[in-house]
Parts: sequence; structure tokens; C-alpha cells
Amino acid sequence: MLTPRADDFPRWYQDLVAKAELADNGPVRGTMVIRPYGYGLWERMQQEMDVRIKDAGAQNAYFPLFIPQSYLTKEAEHVEGFAPELAVVTHGGGKELEEPVVVRPTSETIVNEYFSKWVQSYRDLPLLINQWANVVRWELRPRVFLRTTEFLWQEGHTAHANYEEARDYAARIHRNVYADFMENVLAMDVVPGRKTARERFAGAINTLTLEGMMGDGKALQLGTSHELGQNFAKAFHTRYLSREGRQEYVWQTSWGSTTRMVGALVMMHGDDDGLRVPPRLAPVQAVVIAVKGGPEVPAEVRAIGERLTGAGVRVEVDDRTDVPFGRRAVDWELKGVPVRIEVGPRDLENGTAVLVRRIPGTKEPVAARALAALLPGVLEDDQALLLAQSRRRREDRTAEATTIEEATEAAATGWARIPWAKLGPEGETGLAEQGMSVRCLVAADGTVPERDDQPGNVAIVARAY
Amino acid sequence: MLTPRADDFPRWYQDLVAKAELADNGPVRGTMVIRPYGYGLWERMQQEMDVRIKDAGAQNAYFPLFIPQSYLTKEAEHVEGFAPELAVVTHGGGKELEEPVVVRPTSETIVNEYFSKWVQSYRDLPLLINQWANVVRWELRPRVFLRTTEFLWQEGHTAHANYEEARDYAARIHRNVYADFMENVLAMDVVPGRKTARERFAGAINTLTLEGMMGDGKALQLGTSHELGQNFAKAFHTRYLSREGRQEYVWQTSWGSTTRMVGALVMMHGDDDGLRVPPRLAPVQAVVIAVKGGPEVPAEVRAIGERLTGAGVRVEVDDRTDVPFGRRAVDWELKGVPVRIEVGPRDLENGTAVLVRRIPGTKEPVAARALAALLPGVLEDDQALLLAQSRRRREDRTAEATTIEEATEAAATGWARIPWAKLGPEGETGLAEQGMSVRCLVAADGTVPERDDQPGNVAIVARAY
Repeated sequence: MLTPRADDFPRWYQDLVAKAELADNGPVRGTMVIRPYGYGLWERMQQEMDVRIKDAGAQNAYFPLFIPQSYLTKEAEHVEGFAPELAVVTHGGGKELEEPVVVRPTSETIVNEYFSKWVQSYRDLPLLINQWANVVRWELRPRVFLRTTEFLWQEGHTAHANYEEARDYAARIHRNVYADFMENVLAMDVVPGRKTARERFAGAINTLTLEGMMGDGKALQLGTSHELGQNFAKAFHTRYLSREGRQEYVWQTSWGSTTRMVGALVMMHGDDDGLRVPPRLAPVQAVVIAVKGGPEVPAEVRAIGERLTGAGVRVEVDDRTDVPFGRRAVDWELKGVPVRIEVGPRDLENGTAVLVRRIPGTKEPVAARALAALLPGVLEDDQALLLAQSRRRREDRTAEATTIEEATEAAATGWARIPWAKLGPEGETGLAEQGMSVRCLVAADGTVPERDDQPGNVAIVARAY
Repeated sequence: MLTPRADDFPRWYQDLVAKAELADNGPVRGTMVIRPYGYGLWERMQQEMDVRIKDAGAQNAYFPLFIPQSYLTKEAEHVEGFAPELAVVTHGGGKELEEPVVVRPTSETIVNEYFSKWVQSYRDLPLLINQWANVVRWELRPRVFLRTTEFLWQEGHTAHANYEEARDYAARIHRNVYADFMENVLAMDVVPGRKTARERFAGAINTLTLEGMMGDGKALQLGTSHELGQNFAKAFHTRYLSREGRQEYVWQTSWGSTTRMVGALVMMHGDDDGLRVPPRLAPVQAVVIAVKGGPEVPAEVRAIGERLTGAGVRVEVDDRTDVPFGRRAVDWELKGVPVRIEVGPRDLENGTAVLVRRIPGTKEPVAARALAALLPGVLEDDQALLLAQSRRRREDRTAEATTIEEATEAAATGWARIPWAKLGPEGETGLAEQGMSVRCLVAADGTVPERDDQPGNVAIVARAY
């Protein structure tokens, strides 16, 4: 069905996305149509993330898609970073517009225009806003989910009274929202770190990132949380009256995560048979399948489905016995549903079912009556196994390097760790010429460094999507 | 605080939207910034609608924002209807595009392009898709929430094997999703009916609507469900192999409801003191307010909040005793939170609290311990009262007319019902010249007519937003 990963990883990815019915390419270059099964994964991501974002105190809101071109130019680094990727609306309602508007590539500018109206005094701070929205960045080398001209995301925007609060909030989102979600729901091993100055968000004073290793050893950036300092505040005059009666600029953060995570799910957990969806994320955790017809098998399958639903499992019943069993089994395998429960006429006689676990790849007969008690534990075990497998891969394919040459060699097939003091900004420029980059800096003890030049900092070097 | 409705209804609406912090105008004409409290109302609408849409068998997906201009022109009526409202992207990634793309005003065209790929045989039908998205229609006379250049909505798109199934599905959405949600969650009296040919969606063979009467007697269209016949199927070659082995065009529906419902909530339920949010919708059903300071009142307020949360009430605790009580009370009044529970030092001594009900406008002392048992019933009573009030207004302000003159006179201040046989398409054209329209046709028995010319049909005539 799928091109094997070892033969051609990019083609395997494209095959899987198409055959598991996750997405199609859109008609305008770089856009995508997210099909129901792919969108179901994104909806579950949204649900889990949204709870964590609200627990961090942020409220959802919605800012316009269209931004006056003049806003973008107010923050110098920001416009330099985004100008090459903008989509521009020049005509509206049958007329040429007096000022062209850009389709938002991100919303820092328009958000600040309103923050500067809403924030008056220290009592209005912190102001913690999130939005779920689409954004557009014109892509020259698009790849479905990973790099698309239009993508869906959440973008958080906050304003604080001082540097420390903003710094701590950016770190809190990085840790309690992004890292927690990725590890505990997506079962993804991710490395939390700090971007180098070269890789920072356009307009930020610090960018925190989470980097994941894909099945081919390349890196993918999976969520970033930025300290914006006072850059946008100064550009948009976002000020507040302090307790001491002084006008002060606010300190800000912004942070985003995108539909790219669906692509990461494929490339991190997929195998040659298709996707493997972590049980805590899965829209369908278990599918109960009637192997073949007769009125009794489908009835039993529905009864098992109801018992599992009662046990809190997200279940789908597949009683479409007019479609060959083999075709359906392959399809569920491709879609990566964690557990399949297959029931045929023989099982019905014996009171059994076949339990097929997608993640460990096992298949065993079980008593049908035992399923409801068994399944929650099975799903949790497989969730843990998936995370352990992704961690194992990253550990196995990460090399310790002491020279730039060693790092470059290791990063051809995996990741390299090299002391930042040995690499430095010049070494980093050299890597770029070979299609590699510093994914992030981590401190000697594995924590996130507070400065680029903190002694003992280690650079993670890799090729990246 | 607010301009009284009787003085200037449009200004009252603008005041309320601004002061209750529902939304601000965006920088590009006709766009809006939906603030957290307004967005919280929309989020609750989404939750309630989404459950109903999924119960009707539809799955969520996502189609691109950008549509090639050529797609729009494939269905003749459709392009005629939407061409004047399009926003056009002519530049992307720093270059002029070879073919300009339009920002979706609605997605029938791009959806059909993909349906024609996905649908092969009768086994693939019905195909039931919904998306939550933003759309853009350039507005010359924008009004926040009601008529905005960009708005948020859900749009459903389905394909069926025959006319009857498509017709029944459009009716099912109209009844089980839209009417049910509006009456039972939004507490809105709505009239279900059929649009005349003049008022139909561009490209539809039939449009079902729900019309609500606002506080000033004008009508607002609140959700429409269309039978598209085979118009788009023929334009996009969306065909399937039937059981009998023939290539047949599919029959389709589309249906949408928008952030306009937030504006409707204001104009239907608001009064001179602010918004009144129906309890079943309310993101905050009850706010427990500490009247003034001392450590004990806020502690009691939090304890009551916890007990109410335990009773399944969506609660917010307002213990900001550094802000004057009067200011906070007025703010919660403006925001229309259904129930306020006010606790001061005297209440603490007596074990009481003051229960203020926003919808009936009552205020009475109650035993603090009784609140958790009392509140769920209070909220349901007030939900019912709100619906009854909106029904009463519509009934009181709807006149039976037997001549066009009578209808025109009545529609200056409310709605008129006139036999469609008396009005007809020519009479309808005449109404338009006076700023009035036929909102919908209803059958003699109050049901939705199956044809425009069904004997006994009554036209509802009104001015509309």
C-alpha cells in the first residue's frame, strides 16, 4: 500500500496522508483540504490544548483576518521577517482598495493596536489572550501539514507589567501547555530549548521551542513561545499607568502551535502500515469490527461497542459487512486506530474476540466479556509505549560531538549535540550552508537556558523540516 | 450608561456591544475584533451547535480560504450573487499571481471540486460535511456582528443520491439543528419558513430560513438551509455510479449560521440596562460577588462559588473588593449574566445572600445554604421566561393584513402576515422599494411550505437587518 519509509521517506509521508484520508492538496499552491479524519485529529488537539490554555489563565478572542499593510511596517524586524511571505488583497467589493490589506501571517501587530486601547492601568494587566484562527504565509516549497500557505493554529498574545512576569509566562506556556500536551497526549518525545539569535521569531527577544525527531532523523519545530520584550509595545504605544503613577510600556509574549502537529504525528509515530495514533488523542480509540455477515455478528459487535462506550472508551462500530473484511482492516490499520476488536462467527460461538493492538503490533484472542475491563489499561500501556519508542529513537540517533565536523557528520542521519562554545554564531552560519541548523540550545543539566551564552550550553544540530 | 432603546435603537445596540465588551470595530472597514466576553458567547454557540450537527451525522473538515477565481464563475447564479462582494488577492510572496484568488465568501465551489473526487459510487453517499471557518463578503454598510466584511460561521455541505434525501436533510438541519438550538438554547422565538424565489441563496432551488423579531420590530435572518438541487453538481461534474450502474449527478444541500447570532442575542434579549444572556447559553450563569472587603466576605463568596460549581452551575467569583461594588454590579448587569449573588458583611452574619435575577429583574434575600439547591431551577425558569417574552413580542407586534397597504403600514413598526396569493412576486418587488421584504412564506397551518405557490401560504412582511 505505502512506499516503505526506508525507500523514500517523503513519498511514504505523502502516501500515508493521502491513503489515510488526512488531507488533499488544495487548488491554490500550498493550500490544503483537511479531510474529516485528519480534521478529527486536529479537533482533539484543539480540545486538549484549549483546556491547558484556559488553565494558564488566557481567554479566547478573535482578531480580523485582514491587517492594514501599514501595521506590519511598524516593527522593523517583524516586517523584514514576514514581508516575503505575505498575501495581499488589492481589490474588495469590485474596487481597488485605497490601502492594500495583508492576510494575517500572524497577529502581533493588530493585537497590539487593540491592546494599546484596552490597557490603561496596571489593573488591566496581565492581559492574556488566545485565538484559534487561520493564517497565510506564502510558501515556495509547500508540504502538506508541515509547511502550507494557509494553516490553522492558535496564537497567544499577552501583556504584562514587567520583564520577569512576561518571561515567566512564556516559560509557563512552553512547559505547562506545549510540552505537557505533546508528551502526555501526543506521546511525543520533545526537547525543550531556547532558539539562538539567528533562529528567533521576527521581533522577539527570546524564543522557546520544542523540537521533535521524526522517523527519518530530521527535526521538526513543534511549538514556540516568544518573549517579545517591549518591541511591539514601543511600536504601538502599548502603555499602562503603573501603581507608582508612571506611564510604562508593557512587556509581552506570543506563542503558537499549528496543524503542523498533525504532520508531526504521522512522521513521528507512523510505520510502513500507516499511522499510529496515541490513545489519549485518538478520536476513535477502538473500532469493533464484524468480520462477516449474518445478523448475529453485527449485533454482538454493537453490543461490545456499547459496553466499551460505557467504560469511557471512544468507540466506532464497523458493521459494514458488505465491504470485504480485509479492506476494512487495512483501512483501520492505515488510520492508526489504537485498538481493533474483530468478531467473526467462530468468536461468537466461543464468546471471544480478537484484540489487535496497533502500537505494539500484537494480536490475541480475548474473552468478549473481559474487554470493557481490559481496554482502559491496554490503551494507557500503549500510550506509554509510543512515548517510550519515540524517546528511544531520539536517544539512539543523537550523537555527542566535540567538533563541528563530528556534528555535521552526525546530523546527516540524526541529531548532534555540541557545546555551543565550540560552535558559536559563526559555526552556525556554516551549518546553514550544508542545510543544517541549530534547533535549540539546552543547558548542561537539560533545562532551558536563560541566556545564549550561559556556560555549558549545548547546541542541538540537525536537518529540519 | 446606554442610550435608551426607545430613543435610538441602533445607537443603543452600538453602545451595548462596546460597553459590555463584546466587540470593537476592526481597522479594515467592516471587520470586527471579537473580545473575550463576546467570543465566549460564540464558543458556547459553537459547542451547542457542533453537538447537534454531529448528531445529524455530519463530520467536520476544513477547506482552503483561497479559491481560484475561475471556480466562482462555474455556477452562473452563484457568481452573479457573490461577485460584487469579493475580496481578491492579486499578490503573494512578493509577486503578482498568475490567476488572482478570491477569499472565500462561501465554499460551495471549492467543496464541489473535492466532492467530485471523493464521490465515486452510491456507497460514498450521503457525504455530510461541516466546517467552522471565517468568510469574507465586502460590506458597504457594515454593522458589528450583523453585517461584517469578515464573519465566523459554520457551513455545511452535503451530497445525496436523490432529490428526496437532499430535501429531507436540508429540512432536518433546519429543524433539528437550527430551530432546536435557537429556541432551546438561545431562548429565541423564531419563525421557520421558506424563502421566496427572490430571496433565495444564489445557486439554490430552495432556501429554508429562521426569522427572528428584534427589539425594534425588525426581522433578522438567523440561519438558512438550502437545497442546491443539481446546480453545483452539474457545474463541477459531481457524479456517482448508482446501484443500477448509471452515472448520476448528486443532489446537494448547504446550510450556514454565523456570528450574527451574537448580534441577534443583543437585539432580541437586551434591555436598557444591557444584555440578558439565556442561562443555557451563558458562559457565566451566576456570578458570586463580594460587596465589600474584610477577609471573611471574599472567603464566603468563594465557598458559595464552589458549592454552586458542584451543583453544575457555571460560576464566576468576583472578589475584587478593591473595585467599587456599584461599578462591578453595573458591569455584570451590562454583560447580562443571568444570576448575581451578592454577599456583604450583614449577609455573612445572617447566613444570607441577595439573589438578583437579571431576566425577571427581581432581587430577594435567600439563605446562603439554599442556593445550590435553588439555582438550577431558577436558571431553567428564567430560560423559559426569556423565550416566552420574545414569543410574546413577536405575537403582539405581528398584524394580520388582507391588503398590501395594510401590510406595508404594519411592517413600518412590526411584522405583517398577508396571504401570498394577495401579494405575489409583483407585490414583493413593490415592497423592496419601501425598504421591506418578504422574510419567508409559512403554510396555513404554520408549517414550512413545500412550494411557493402552495394554497394558503402566508407571507411574513417586515423591514430587516
